Amino acid sequence: MLVVGIGQCSWDCLAVADRYPPANSKCEVRHWQEQGGGPVATALVALSRFGVPGRFLGVVGDDTEGEKIRSCLQREGIETVGLVTRKHASSQKAFIAIENTAGSRTIFWQRPTGSPLLPEELPRDFLDGCSFLHLDGLMKDVSLSAASQARDKGIPVMLDAGSSRPGMEALANSCDYLVAAERFALEMGWDGTMEGFQSFAARFSSAVVTVTLGERGSITRHGRETFALPAFPAVTVDTTGAGDVFHGGYLFGLLQGLSLEDTIRFASAAAALKCGRIGGRAGIPDVASVLRFLDDKGVSLRAWPGVMQTPRDPSKARET
Amino acid sequence: MLVVGIGQCSWDCLAVADRYPPANSKCEVRHWQEQGGGPVATALVALSRFGVPGRFLGVVGDDTEGEKIRSCLQREGIETVGLVTRKHASSQKAFIAIENTAGSRTIFWQRPTGSPLLPEELPRDFLDGCSFLHLDGLMKDVSLSAASQARDKGIPVMLDAGSSRPGMEALANSCDYLVAAERFALEMGWDGTMEGFQSFAARFSSAVVTVTLGERGSITRHGRETFALPAFPAVTVDTTGAGDVFHGGYLFGLLQGLSLEDTIRFASAAAALKCGRIGGRAGIPDVASVLRFLDDKGVSLRAWPGVMQTPRDPSKARET
Repeated sequence: MLVVGIGQCSWDCLAVADRYPPANSKCEVRHWQEQGGGPVATALVALSRFGVPGRFLGVVGDDTEGEKIRSCLQREGIETVGLVTRKHASSQKAFIAIENTAGSRTIFWQRPTGSPLLPEELPRDFLDGCSFLHLDGLMKDVSLSAASQARDKGIPVMLDAGSSRPGMEALANSCDYLVAAERFALEMGWDGTMEGFQSFAARFSSAVVTVTLGERGSITRHGRETFALPAFPAVTVDTTGAGDVFHGGYLFGLLQGLSLEDTIRFASAAAALKCGRIGGRAGIPDVASVLRFLDDKGVSLRAWPGVMQTPRDPSKARET
Repeated sequence: MLVVGIGQCSWDCLAVADRYPPANSKCEVRHWQEQGGGPVATALVALSRFGVPGRFLGVVGDDTEGEKIRSCLQREGIETVGLVTRKHASSQKAFIAIENTAGSRTIFWQRPTGSPLLPEELPRDFLDGCSFLHLDGLMKDVSLSAASQARDKGIPVMLDAGSSRPGMEALANSCDYLVAAERFALEMGWDGTMEGFQSFAARFSSAVVTVTLGERGSITRHGRETFALPAFPAVTVDTTGAGDVFHGGYLFGLLQGLSLEDTIRFASAAAALKCGRIGGRAGIPDVASVLRFLDDKGVSLRAWPGVMQTPRDPSKARET
């Protein structure tokens, strides 16, 4: 079992403010810290903590942040041979202001200054052993090429759609699972209602469509069925990366053969637990913790296969 | 001629956003860059570019930011023997979001996590050769001690008061020049009017009091005289550090023997020129550029002594 991810990897600085400040003011913050981030990279880290190996493809610059991004992924046991270093370029960076009282996070981010990964830079064997391909669509051309190659091989594809970037709709139509942020759905014409969801999701007729709504849970359309699931209440310190961990949990549930509803319950629980710590990755739980959390909430996953309930030792992972 | 500064030194990340984002959103930024900052440290850098050597005392942590803060000050020709490195501590850091259209900057900053400089850590000879002491009051005890020692030696003291921190009023009353931000004045009871300024400034009866008002210029009280001066219109890319450069220019004008009004004109012109580039330091002009700018605006400094009009070569400065 192996998930291949192509997309963003970032070096994040995070800090906590009592309140998100108004423009043109000075705001003293605390708990300043740094960790790796980025939607696809963090989803792969979550999968690795759940016991599923990952292979990441993307770009960094030849700066210290690029080195830190790569070594953190490697420490999580993720293959980084396909992570290309662009010369004279900056890696993706972010500053994330966490609001203490609200649990909200405001992200200032800069995309890598080097050119995006190109379709011709995909290694010939990048899908070898791949059980699922995960994309975020920031690098349009390589994402479309990779999705097409995956579908030719019968490998399912998930798209994490954060906003309606150019090419995102075409990419969404090449995917089997569109797991999108509320912003993407609203930008693509969803009216925000349960009734309007069916017609929005029908634009991506070949895919299972889930839209995440933060603390309001999620809505999913699968064929003609549409269902909403609530989020789990949890102690929230920082929501950074909650969506990315949701994607990791979603992929894990599908790979485990859970029902779609149980898959989303697992993903929601993993995301809720992540919010207990600062940063996209520090709070990612292992499978045993997710199951314990679900048990505490009185939720049992109907078809839980009972494997991989212990966290995998990353040091035993494939080395790059 | 030498200015001693005790106060904040920071490692700043700066980035430009089209608009300052609302809380809990993602904002793509550009022109991400890093440079040294901090009110007193940047004022000393400005003085150094004007040809006046500086000696900086403060604290950094034993992190890479601390190394960068120190080496950047040294490259500007500033003595850093009194810059103490705290072990297992972070240096002061900031993320500064610059709003492209408005020229406003929003500063998220964390103070150094190591303990402040202590009065007993002031080297015995820290005021040797000193013509002016410049303070920002973040480290209360050492600032009060240094101000007292300076006054005993007949060395004038300037306080850059950004906000009404504990101990700030006592410190302001130990200074000869209180050059404060509007926020400090409002927090200390100024009603914001020209008429109310005299009674606000009378609280600091022994000092010349100037309050800076950004693009609205400044108000100054000297004895019984109160006068307002406008800011110079200029191309504004980023206002970060404009106040710090104003302080550097103010100190320079006083050291050059300019009249108080001409001193403030020089300081305003230097601050206006700084705003043409991103960051607190990149845009600091040399003296010739300030004089050319003033000339272009039809302003001639009455008592300009005609010395030090060429930028000083930092490589010829005292080495630490």
